[in-house]
Amino acid sequence: MVKKVLKFGGTSVGTIERIQHVANIIKKEHSEKNKVIAVVSAMSGKTNELLKLSNEIAEDFNKRELDVLLSSGEQVTCALLSGALTRLNIKSKSFMNWQIPILTEGDHSNARIINIHVEKINDYLNNNGVAIVPGFQGISKNGDITTIGRGGSDATAVAIAKIFNAECCEIYTDVDGVFSTDPNKIPVAKKIDKISYDEMLELSSLGAKVMQSSAVQTAMMYDIPLEVKSTFTERKGTKIFSQENIDYTKSVTGVAYSKDDAKITVKEVEDKPGVAANMFEPLSKAQVNVDMVIQNISSDQKTTDITFTVKRDDISKTKQILKESTSINYKEIISNEKVAKVSIVGAGMVSTPGVTYKMFRGLSDENINILAISTSEIKLSVIIDEENTLKAVKKLHTIFDLD
Amino acid sequence: MVKKVLKFGGTSVGTIERIQHVANIIKKEHSEKNKVIAVVSAMSGKTNELLKLSNEIAEDFNKRELDVLLSSGEQVTCALLSGALTRLNIKSKSFMNWQIPILTEGDHSNARIINIHVEKINDYLNNNGVAIVPGFQGISKNGDITTIGRGGSDATAVAIAKIFNAECCEIYTDVDGVFSTDPNKIPVAKKIDKISYDEMLELSSLGAKVMQSSAVQTAMMYDIPLEVKSTFTERKGTKIFSQENIDYTKSVTGVAYSKDDAKITVKEVEDKPGVAANMFEPLSKAQVNVDMVIQNISSDQKTTDITFTVKRDDISKTKQILKESTSINYKEIISNEKVAKVSIVGAGMVSTPGVTYKMFRGLSDENINILAISTSEIKLSVIIDEENTLKAVKKLHTIFDLD
Repeated sequence: MVKKVLKFGGTSVGTIERIQHVANIIKKEHSEKNKVIAVVSAMSGKTNELLKLSNEIAEDFNKRELDVLLSSGEQVTCALLSGALTRLNIKSKSFMNWQIPILTEGDHSNARIINIHVEKINDYLNNNGVAIVPGFQGISKNGDITTIGRGGSDATAVAIAKIFNAECCEIYTDVDGVFSTDPNKIPVAKKIDKISYDEMLELSSLGAKVMQSSAVQTAMMYDIPLEVKSTFTERKGTKIFSQENIDYTKSVTGVAYSKDDAKITVKEVEDKPGVAANMFEPLSKAQVNVDMVIQNISSDQKTTDITFTVKRDDISKTKQILKESTSINYKEIISNEKVAKVSIVGAGMVSTPGVTYKMFRGLSDENINILAISTSEIKLSVIIDEENTLKAVKKLHTIFDLD
Repeated sequence: MVKKVLKFGGTSVGTIERIQHVANIIKKEHSEKNKVIAVVSAMSGKTNELLKLSNEIAEDFNKRELDVLLSSGEQVTCALLSGALTRLNIKSKSFMNWQIPILTEGDHSNARIINIHVEKINDYLNNNGVAIVPGFQGISKNGDITTIGRGGSDATAVAIAKIFNAECCEIYTDVDGVFSTDPNKIPVAKKIDKISYDEMLELSSLGAKVMQSSAVQTAMMYDIPLEVKSTFTERKGTKIFSQENIDYTKSVTGVAYSKDDAKITVKEVEDKPGVAANMFEPLSKAQVNVDMVIQNISSDQKTTDITFTVKRDDISKTKQILKESTSINYKEIISNEKVAKVSIVGAGMVSTPGVTYKMFRGLSDENINILAISTSEIKLSVIIDEENTLKAVKKLHTIFDLD
């Protein structure tokens, strides 16, 4: 008898037929004597539909009430799934955020789960019932409904797996698992059987939208084995666990890309100590996340050009802050939103010499200009012109033997 | 400063524009320094949409989960209305069934409100906030979500008015008030300015679907003044209060009709004492509500025909029970679903002689045959062929000076 958390995303519960299919998956687990806690998202499209209603009233809709509004989506799925299980003669019950309760702290729409009471659900599991829990939500200390950000159902599932000491946490979704790159764009992409938390983290934060990063982080912190698998096929998914349990035969595990970065160049900044600090301090205070930074000495040797990347959403805020800053002098600010970040990720990179060279050579062979570079132990990212994205991803996928 | 409960039905909050309009009505009350508790229904169509989803899974959908499912509808309206008030700079907050809490007892989908905690909402009202409360729902002693039956938002509003000692309870709806008969079918129908609880009760239980009967009953029991009025016009509505506060100038206040009755005749029942008791006892046990009863002596004088009316929904159940009953002998059972109940209602009837004669004469003048009759102090109902319904209603409306 194994305690399992099964999480079903929006597309997995997007229609009544799919909810009935999910009920059958749970029935199978239940018939194998597993104790099942199912965490569910809102039916696909539902959260956007509710958001649209709130936007028709106000773009800056009351934050507390937005959480009341959005949390109703998962409530609907919970009830329907529990009803579908009843129909299959499986004992089951929905547990709302306040019934459990799932305690959170932090701002509305961006809260964090800090505790989940286990008594009621454990009693129910011990009495052979299946517990259905809404993802993405909780309550605050004051008893207000909170939500934990888009994709937050993954975080709920991992938090529940941790607090209930579940043996594993299975993330059911609409793809077969984690791929070596985006299978929709690059047909030779391959499903990865095993991947480490670190690699998964780099991939999920880099645009491979299979799992929410903070959920992977929590799983890593508490060493909770994850499996990402398809709701719609019987195929094996991708297992995610600690690096030490994986034998690396390849230096690179996957190639990710994202198109939500923008590049900003501040031209002819006075070249003296502290100038970068002066430039980035107000950005940091304004919660603008600066990713890569490059500093060039300009021709006159008295000034320098500083280039950096930020999220596209932050670009006008960034420019505004730089313009208002009195502590730096510069000639002009140039921005480019037509850039993409392409990254190779692999825990095997650190032990394989020449990966960096091989990447740069490969891009150069395709006449792709590198605009910025950043590295970590298991990742190497470059900024390139957006139009070259797929060409770059394909090339890297091939030269690192992932096809 | 007056404490008011304002209840907004499904059509009143059926679109974002209408929710914004409702927010303006509340803003006006708030600006007049009234303390406002708004009770809201689900957006029109929403409850049926959710019911349809549950029906696709199972017609006998898990009762506990059905309440979880349906209660989400009012949650959505609460959040949207509170957000709309924020947009108008009115301080407001939604209070969910479990946050207040609204305590209920009884079966799922048919619970009764037994208590509502007042502290949180009173504090909020005293701090100049508008409290938004979901109608139709509560929680059980065990902390499960319950609902209190279709139309239950009226009951919530009246219960809140009672427990919070509100000065009045205004029921906002999509009609101008209570009419002397159905204004959609009988254009000469007139809005009634004042009506007693008793009359309203007879009208609402007889098919004038303006307010839920049990809510009117509660208001009568605790003498809570009600006003039914339109969300969409500025016209005065219908005030509902105790009979002693009304001067009756007319014997009849309104003419109601309904088409959900059916007539059953049991032919040639052995005519001996106790036969009616034997016939109706098993029906009563099976919760079949028998309305009017007529007993005729048949030609042979040893047997009798018993005719009675039940709700159409109960007709097959009723026949089944009679067939299975071993304590009565009869020749055959004839049923007729093509009947209608037409009623005149008026607290002034009791003091006006000849009302009964006038009604029968009027129907006879139109060649309408009376199939059954029942009376109370303030009501006189007849069963007639369904096809004559409107003709009868029009005639009665005219002869009792209501046009």
